[in-house]
Parts: sequence; C-alpha cells; structure tokens
Amino acid sequence: MMSVRVVLVEPRYEGNVGAVCRVMKNFGFSELFLVKPCGLGDFAKAMSMHARDVLESARIVDTFEEALEGVDIAIATTGKPGARLAGHVRHPYFNPKELREMLEDKAGTAALVFGREDRGLTNDTLERCDIVAYIPTSKEYPIMNLSQAVAIFMYELSGFKGGRVALASRELMDVFYSHYEGLLDDIGYPEHKKGRTMTMLRRIYGRAMLNEREYYTMMGVLHEIELALERARKHG
Amino acid sequence: MMSVRVVLVEPRYEGNVGAVCRVMKNFGFSELFLVKPCGLGDFAKAMSMHARDVLESARIVDTFEEALEGVDIAIATTGKPGARLAGHVRHPYFNPKELREMLEDKAGTAALVFGREDRGLTNDTLERCDIVAYIPTSKEYPIMNLSQAVAIFMYELSGFKGGRVALASRELMDVFYSHYEGLLDDIGYPEHKKGRTMTMLRRIYGRAMLNEREYYTMMGVLHEIELALERARKHG
Repeated sequence: MMSVRVVLVEPRYEGNVGAVCRVMKNFGFSELFLVKPCGLGDFAKAMSMHARDVLESARIVDTFEEALEGVDIAIATTGKPGARLAGHVRHPYFNPKELREMLEDKAGTAALVFGREDRGLTNDTLERCDIVAYIPTSKEYPIMNLSQAVAIFMYELSGFKGGRVALASRELMDVFYSHYEGLLDDIGYPEHKKGRTMTMLRRIYGRAMLNEREYYTMMGVLHEIELALERARKHG
Repeated sequence: MMSVRVVLVEPRYEGNVGAVCRVMKNFGFSELFLVKPCGLGDFAKAMSMHARDVLESARIVDTFEEALEGVDIAIATTGKPGARLAGHVRHPYFNPKELREMLEDKAGTAALVFGREDRGLTNDTLERCDIVAYIPTSKEYPIMNLSQAVAIFMYELSGFKGGRVALASRELMDVFYSHYEGLLDDIGYPEHKKGRTMTMLRRIYGRAMLNEREYYTMMGVLHEIELALERARKHG
C-alpha cells in the first residue's frame, strides 16, 4: 500500500504548519518532514488543535535530500504549472484526482512536497522530484494558501485500498538516472541539451512509476548499449 | 448552470473568514453570505490576500433565512454525520464527489452552509437545509478547520460544465412541504412523529432535486389526495 509523507520546504508561517498537521490527522496521515522551517511556537500548536502529536513528531531537517530518505517517489506541487511542452521542469503535471489514480495500485512511500508560501518550490527542487502535481484553480487567482492546498491533497489521497505493485525505490532510480547521464556523456550528447533531457527523463520515468523488475530490465538495456558501444569502438 | 453561494453561520475567527474568501476566489467563486459573523478587521483582510473583493462584497445578515434568499437548494455541511438511519437530521449524507455528481447537470443556485468553528451547525439549521454533506475524515480526528473544509468543497464543486435541469426553487419547495404538513394534520398523523417525518421528506426531496415540472405534478398529487379526502368525508 502507498504511504504518504508530507514535506514542507522552508515554511514561513507557523500557523500554516499547525494547520497542515491538523488536516493531515483529519485524513489519517502522520508523517511530516520540515526542511528549514520557521520557528514553531504556541501559534503552531494552537492551529494544530488535536494534532499536536503530528506536530511534535515532525522531523526537522536541513536539506531536501534528507527529507526524501526512504521515499520511492517524490511529488512536487506547484501553483504555476508549465505552460509549454518544452518546460519539462513543470510539465507534464497531474491533478490530485489523476495522482490518486496513478498511486492507487502501487506500494511504497510517496513524498508530497510543498514549497514556501511566497514563492513555492524552486526549479532546483522541482527538478529533483519525479512527478509534478497541480490543483486546477482559477486563472484569475491561482495561488492557494499552503494549508488549504495540503488539505485538498490529503482529501484526495486518503483511504488507499492497498496496491500490490511495489515501486522501485528512489535510490535505485537515481542509479538509473546517473547511468543514463553517463551514457549521454559517452555518446557525446550535446552538453547544452543534457540538463533538460535529464529532467524530461525523470518526468517520463516518474509518471511511469517503475517497479523493481522493470528497473532491472531497463538497467540491463543501458548496460547492453554500453557494451555494444565498447565492442563497436574496439572492433570498428 | 449551478451557481454556488457559500454561507458561513456565525463564524468566530476572522482569519478563517479571510481564508475562506481566498480559497473561494482560487476556485472562481465569489458569493459569500455571513450570518452574524465575528468582527472583520485587518487579520481577515490579510488572510484573504488577493481576494479582498470577495471579503468586501460579502453580505452580512442577521438570520439564516436571509442568507437563503434566492437559493434553490441548501446544502448543510457537518463533521458529525448521522450514524443511524433513524436520525434524518444528519442522514443520509453525501460526500463532496457525490454532491458534485448530483449538481453537475442541474441549473440554479446552491447554498453551501458551514457552521460555527466550535460546534458546527445546530440541528435547527440542519433541519432547514435540503441536503447534508460530509467530508469523509479519519474517525480518530474528524473535525476539520473551517477554511480547509471550505477548500475541499470549492475544489470539488468548481468548473461545472453547465446543466440544463432547472431546479424548483426553495420557495416553491417550501410551499410543497407546508402543504404536505397540512395533509399530515388532515389525516390525523401522530403529532409526535410529524417533525421527524417532515425532516425525512426534506431529505428525500432534497436529494431528488425536483425540477419545476416535477414540483407541479407533486403539488397536483397532494391536491388530488386532499380532494379525495373531502369527497370521501362528504359522501362517506
């Protein structure tokens, strides 16, 4: 079954953090990671209401990578989805309902990542996530309050029945991506295209959500390509 | 097409009212009625962010009935749905997805009614609504923050494509209910059962969402029953 971790990156208002704790507990979630949060005092406690336990057991970490330890798939949320197909950092994106359908039959740990109230997630953080999610809002005023956005995701992602398809871990997938990047270097892929192509690869494999068997097969394919290149280079 | 009005009954925290305005605008809604609200000052404005216009155009009224003027169907929200079939005040209840499906092909004005933060809607107010809605939450901690609950309904009810089935107005339906109650009196229906039966009738016709043609037919049926009773009494 999918377990869901909420990651808040640099939240600035303790009231929001408390309100996030409350709505997590409302929907049966409890795993919260805070990356370099604001101070958490009485107002955070007050807003968490009867979810003080979620607030008190939140893990406070210094880096985004620490917040992804043990995570199989990292889902970035954004209030500004990509408008152009060319912008792979924020494209393609999925709405909360689609996300639920994608995760329903899976097993593993998903991190749902939310950025700072005033500027959202940086491109750098977005690039390190596997999937982009977006709540369809009015064009006139798309930017939501952090705790209300979390509420909508908690509502959509609660009550998973339990899937059987175990996801390849994010650690494994990172090995895959780094091999792939090595292959791009090896074949002399244009340096200026490489970054965007790697982000696109992450978007493609991110939404495909590989299981372990698929991961090993794809690693095998990469390995075979490398061997073929070697042979070709030796024997012309 | 369905238009949706948000009604907050006696909200106690201005921050919540501001956050409700913001999320309404996020999803393209603007019609807000406040029944005997708390004072609305700077914090409400701050929390409304770029939805100050929604806050400033909110209609402040003294009674629940005023907030339902022009409404065709009133939807009560509750964090404590009815557990027993016998409790018609809070039963049956529908989740936000079901509510959306019920409203999708209709045309008219729906009021989505939220109660006070600390105690929700009173039974008296619930009885005057046509439908009960409930967000499925964890049994361990079911009571949500007001503005987060509004967020989830706004999210589910946004973007109606436009329905064609015009609802019979709430004014017409009230005439129907009062005729029905008159009929119950006329047939000597037990007084101690009457209140609950009337609430049950409102739940049944509320979720059935009658159009005008159906309304006139049902009124005709009531009238025919009354005439038949008269004839029977005259001629034995």
